[in-house]
Amino acid sequence: MALIVQKFGGSSLATPEHIRRVAKIIAETKKNNHRVVVVVSAMSGETDRLLNLAHETATMPQERELDALLATGEQVSAALVAIALKSMKITARSYLGLQLPLLTDKQHTRARIIKLSTEELKKTLEQDIVPVVAGFQGVNSNGDITTLGRGGSDTSAVALAAALQADLCEIHSDVDGVYTADPAICPRARHLGQLTYGEMLEMADMGAKILQIRSVELARKFKVPLLIKSSFGSDKCTWIVEEEKRDMESAVISGIILSHNEAKLSVIRVPDRPGVAYQILSPLADASINVDMIIQNASIDGYTDFTFTVPKTDLSKTRELVEKVLPKIGARELCTDDGIVKISAVGLGIKNCPGVAARMFQALANEGINIQMISTSDIRLSCVVEAKYGELAVRVLHDVFGLEKNNSFNPA
Amino acid sequence: MALIVQKFGGSSLATPEHIRRVAKIIAETKKNNHRVVVVVSAMSGETDRLLNLAHETATMPQERELDALLATGEQVSAALVAIALKSMKITARSYLGLQLPLLTDKQHTRARIIKLSTEELKKTLEQDIVPVVAGFQGVNSNGDITTLGRGGSDTSAVALAAALQADLCEIHSDVDGVYTADPAICPRARHLGQLTYGEMLEMADMGAKILQIRSVELARKFKVPLLIKSSFGSDKCTWIVEEEKRDMESAVISGIILSHNEAKLSVIRVPDRPGVAYQILSPLADASINVDMIIQNASIDGYTDFTFTVPKTDLSKTRELVEKVLPKIGARELCTDDGIVKISAVGLGIKNCPGVAARMFQALANEGINIQMISTSDIRLSCVVEAKYGELAVRVLHDVFGLEKNNSFNPA
Repeated sequence: MALIVQKFGGSSLATPEHIRRVAKIIAETKKNNHRVVVVVSAMSGETDRLLNLAHETATMPQERELDALLATGEQVSAALVAIALKSMKITARSYLGLQLPLLTDKQHTRARIIKLSTEELKKTLEQDIVPVVAGFQGVNSNGDITTLGRGGSDTSAVALAAALQADLCEIHSDVDGVYTADPAICPRARHLGQLTYGEMLEMADMGAKILQIRSVELARKFKVPLLIKSSFGSDKCTWIVEEEKRDMESAVISGIILSHNEAKLSVIRVPDRPGVAYQILSPLADASINVDMIIQNASIDGYTDFTFTVPKTDLSKTRELVEKVLPKIGARELCTDDGIVKISAVGLGIKNCPGVAARMFQALANEGINIQMISTSDIRLSCVVEAKYGELAVRVLHDVFGLEKNNSFNPA
Repeated sequence: MALIVQKFGGSSLATPEHIRRVAKIIAETKKNNHRVVVVVSAMSGETDRLLNLAHETATMPQERELDALLATGEQVSAALVAIALKSMKITARSYLGLQLPLLTDKQHTRARIIKLSTEELKKTLEQDIVPVVAGFQGVNSNGDITTLGRGGSDTSAVALAAALQADLCEIHSDVDGVYTADPAICPRARHLGQLTYGEMLEMADMGAKILQIRSVELARKFKVPLLIKSSFGSDKCTWIVEEEKRDMESAVISGIILSHNEAKLSVIRVPDRPGVAYQILSPLADASINVDMIIQNASIDGYTDFTFTVPKTDLSKTRELVEKVLPKIGARELCTDDGIVKISAVGLGIKNCPGVAARMFQALANEGINIQMISTSDIRLSCVVEAKYGELAVRVLHDVFGLEKNNSFNPA
């Protein structure tokens, strides 16, 4: 008898019929003698509907009210799943972030979890009642509703699994796991049965759209095994586990990921003196804008160009902040470009195979694709290229690294 | 400088454009140096949308989850109104029932208010922030969300006005006040500038559809002046005040009201012995079903028929409860009829004008309308008639009592 946290995404809850199907999955798990804690996202389309209402009401909705507004989406799902379970003779009880409580910091629209009380949930489980928790939301010490950012229900689920010391956290959505590339772009993409937290982090970060990255970080920190499943009847699934538990013969490269989510900013002709990068980036940090890739060209005549990427959604806010800094640092101008994509190869073998990077750059060059920025980690190689080349690049790299077959790439 | 509670109904909040119009009304009130507390209903259609989701998910949704579900409608409105106010440079802050808190009893879907904390609201008002309270909802001592029943936002508004000792509670909707009859049925209906709480109670009860009856009871108890206004630009409005403040020359009859909301139940051939009425009605009281009219025929051979009306929505539940009682009291059968309407004349003059009832019965008889049940109060005369005669009866009585003109009816 295991304790399982089952999280269901918006597409799994799209209609009352979907919701009854989810209730059946939960019922099945209960029948196998497991205890279940359910976490739900908003019904698909609901968060966008609410956001549209807010933006039709005012051009700059304040974040406290956005959180109060958006949190209703998950509240609706939680109540409906509890209702569906009850109709299958399974006693269930919906919980809001406010009711657990799931305490967060005071930042709105992207709050961080401070403390998750499990007392109420444990009591509920002891009574053989299935708690159905509204994901994505929490409450700050003022009693205001906060939200954890888009996809935050994954983080809610993993946090609950960690706090309850659950045996497993299942993430149910409309995908049955992770593939070597997006099958819509790359027909030869292959399903992956297993990944490490680290690989998944790089992939989620790159826009694999399966999991909120923070949830994987949290899972790694608390060693919560993740299982990515489809609620639409596929048998396949992907385990996300610690490196020690990963199969021995893992491939050098596990996947190729294309991200459309970033925009590039270049601060042109910055005097090349210490502290400039700090002056440009610290206002962004204060505004909780994630800067991803950063490059600084070699200095010419004491001037340099400073280029970095941020999430596309933060581009206008970032532009505003950086433009305020320009006169202070004596830079000439700011150029922005949202017509870029980031293409990444992710795999545990990268750190041990120096030939991988060369092979990647060569393959892109062979297709005439110009690389604008490069960044690397132990298990990731990323290039920024013009957006129109993105899908071609995925297919080329998938071929070059032989990902359609389950074998190791030999760079020699 | 007055403290005004402004409540806006669903039709006033139907779209983002409506919401901005509401924000302008609030801004205007602020500009006239009043302090404002706003109470909102769900956007029109939203409560029905949510109810449909619940009923598509399961045939018998449990009430705790229905409350958690429905409460989101007002939460959405409150956040959006706060957003709209902010865009007009008015600092606002949304509040859920849970956040005030508005403490209720543990009954779901029709909870009653136990205590309303005003501490947080007073702090907010002191900082010149407009609180925007989600109506209709509260929280019980378990921390569960409760709701006050359909139209409960009116009750939230009056409760807030009473607790804050506000000077006035404005009820904004798509109607500009109370008329002598429904203008859609009776083209000669006349707008009323003023009514007493008592008259309004009888009218709301009769289906005037303007206010939840409990809100008027609460307003009378705490002497909160009510002002019924339209948020769609009409100059007219109706004051609901104490009898002492009512104009001297009030009409004998203020209005004719048609109610489609009731169903009739007859327990046939009940042994006529003490305690029978109690045995029939006490399970209904326990189930919080409001019994309205009750008649018991003269006893023949020790048997009688016992007839009463309940809200149509409670008919099936009532039938179920009464059928359980039938064998215990030895009654023959239960007949039900939901093809009835109740037609009522309401006015302060009824108690002093014995001729009014006779005139009413005569007018109906002249049209060949059979009266099935009669009930009266100090200020109301009601008859149950076959549904098809309802609208005719309204027009006939409106004419007989001369309501198109603002004058007293002389029964002599």
